[in-house]
Amino acid sequence: MSSLHVVIPAGGAGTRLWPLSRQSWPKYLLEVERERSLLRAAIERVEPLAADVCVVTSPATARLVAEQVDGAAVPTEVMAEPSPKNSMPAIGLAAAIIEYRHGRDALVGSFAADHAIADEQRFRRVVSEAMRAADHGWIVTIGITPTHPATGYGYIETGASIDGLAARGVTSFTEKPDATRAGHYLARGGYLWNAGMFIARCGVLLDALAEEHPEMARGLRALARLDRPSRQANEIWDALPAIAIDHAVAEPQASAGRVAVCEAGDIGWSDVGDYAALAECTRDADGIARVGDITVTGIDAPGSLAAASAASQGEHVIVCGIPDAIVVRAGDTTLVTTRAWAGRIREVRERASHDRSSE
Amino acid sequence: MSSLHVVIPAGGAGTRLWPLSRQSWPKYLLEVERERSLLRAAIERVEPLAADVCVVTSPATARLVAEQVDGAAVPTEVMAEPSPKNSMPAIGLAAAIIEYRHGRDALVGSFAADHAIADEQRFRRVVSEAMRAADHGWIVTIGITPTHPATGYGYIETGASIDGLAARGVTSFTEKPDATRAGHYLARGGYLWNAGMFIARCGVLLDALAEEHPEMARGLRALARLDRPSRQANEIWDALPAIAIDHAVAEPQASAGRVAVCEAGDIGWSDVGDYAALAECTRDADGIARVGDITVTGIDAPGSLAAASAASQGEHVIVCGIPDAIVVRAGDTTLVTTRAWAGRIREVRERASHDRSSE
Repeated sequence: MSSLHVVIPAGGAGTRLWPLSRQSWPKYLLEVERERSLLRAAIERVEPLAADVCVVTSPATARLVAEQVDGAAVPTEVMAEPSPKNSMPAIGLAAAIIEYRHGRDALVGSFAADHAIADEQRFRRVVSEAMRAADHGWIVTIGITPTHPATGYGYIETGASIDGLAARGVTSFTEKPDATRAGHYLARGGYLWNAGMFIARCGVLLDALAEEHPEMARGLRALARLDRPSRQANEIWDALPAIAIDHAVAEPQASAGRVAVCEAGDIGWSDVGDYAALAECTRDADGIARVGDITVTGIDAPGSLAAASAASQGEHVIVCGIPDAIVVRAGDTTLVTTRAWAGRIREVRERASHDRSSE
Repeated sequence: MSSLHVVIPAGGAGTRLWPLSRQSWPKYLLEVERERSLLRAAIERVEPLAADVCVVTSPATARLVAEQVDGAAVPTEVMAEPSPKNSMPAIGLAAAIIEYRHGRDALVGSFAADHAIADEQRFRRVVSEAMRAADHGWIVTIGITPTHPATGYGYIETGASIDGLAARGVTSFTEKPDATRAGHYLARGGYLWNAGMFIARCGVLLDALAEEHPEMARGLRALARLDRPSRQANEIWDALPAIAIDHAVAEPQASAGRVAVCEAGDIGWSDVGDYAALAECTRDADGIARVGDITVTGIDAPGSLAAASAASQGEHVIVCGIPDAIVVRAGDTTLVTTRAWAGRIREVRERASHDRSSE
């Protein structure tokens, strides 16, 4: 089987984890495991399957990303986008470069920089299945078996099994549903969570893009042949539309019956999408979740999370008498709330920014 | 009427307000009002009645105290005790010096460095009454009218009114009672809280001390005549017993019928004894209590307190969804709890110190 050319788009600040992650310290840098950032974990868990890894990020964060990539077991590259364009241009350019270097049958696999996966072996097993399906010409996604009627994820509607592959066809991708619809999906069965993982031959992916957005595919394939950065390259990049790979390729190709899905099963996936999710995937034996190099004393505080940004490492947080507390230390900012508020952090941040600026 | 020579013993760390106050940053330095420490407030509220003010503190905190005393409206002195000896030696030495300088009829008044009083005018009115009673030869204390059956204060049992003075005799001083006994005191009436304020002629106070502890009175009077610091002075000081003025003079003299009490009425007194008390006496219009120069965003957090030590000034604390929260920022330590735990901070501190040292 071919090996995988891995692309990891690392954009986005993760505002639902403010003030722990910010524009200048994106979510993928958080050390959810002790001394391993989400990005580093994303790289290490695919390494055994990877020929090489390319992380696409912004010029502002390229240096921080390079530190994370340093010392990886496979060749790595950090590519700085001249401007943010959502996931399709980032993944598409990486695919075009891989196609240019390794030919149109080389496999490209795109994975999020800031998700957590507890069972890495099972994860690699399903990625291997996805690679086999991709080798057969499918655009393949990996679907997470839902554990509850989540409203925070898009869903993949699955169709019939594909002969000879551990995969099924994808009927459609759906946007994040409301609670009623999510409940309906779970009751009906056949729906998986969309974790934003895509595996395909470079040629298949770019040809599919060419069907939907011909100028974009042409631009990316031209960019792959050019020196970057250069004025000409930047001009082509700037002209590209900002669009997610889901909308640009996955959804229309699913309608055309060209997308397959491999079901991940119980791999302990989390998008680490808010503080509740962060607490879930970092809980220690004593029931307290710790993020960053901090001492945490928890007294009568089951289910609590204490997290420290890079500016607050080595600190001591004491939480006492508040179950499900969330305490975030981030330099001169301290957020204290509970898990019940995990979904409303953007709102809290806006209010806080207003108070601060009016002081 | 004579004017008052004020003594303010400023010892004690205030461990029930850890980590906001510590040995190196005692409770009396907390800025409970905006930009005014408890000690500064203690000085300023007696200034209109005072001839001079002497603050007795430790050598380690003498410089911090001097900064607080600087710019007072009356002559001030900071006296550093060679070693801590509780309140009697501190107040007694100040009284002996006042007696040596101004004669035995000069009035000495001792007030806590770390209490809060909301109504300063009413406070001065009752101090004036106490001064008049002291001019008549009484050892006078000021009693706080109880508002609830508190178990955190000693009580003053009052006797008959004293003719011609707005004062009553003191039958006895009691230790901090349990809840049953405190309820009993309130139901029965005639009990006031002991706020540790004493006013007397220097000669009366020292003669009373001489009756109970003759060597101590002799030592203090000798010290008043000596150069300090000096080897001889330090030797005398070191030989003194460590004892509170309540036990050394007030209790035995009350039994002898020589102590009077002036009732303070509603002066808004607080001993700022724990975080619940601190929250009560610093509440802003929005229901949030702020201590120190910090921005606080409170969302659905009525009754909460956010406090910053000297090391954490200028910070921003956001409290969200936790009523009665207590959030204390103190350098590399953050305490998050609720008012229900205000009485158990020593316990929390011990547990926290253990966690930190075992890291």
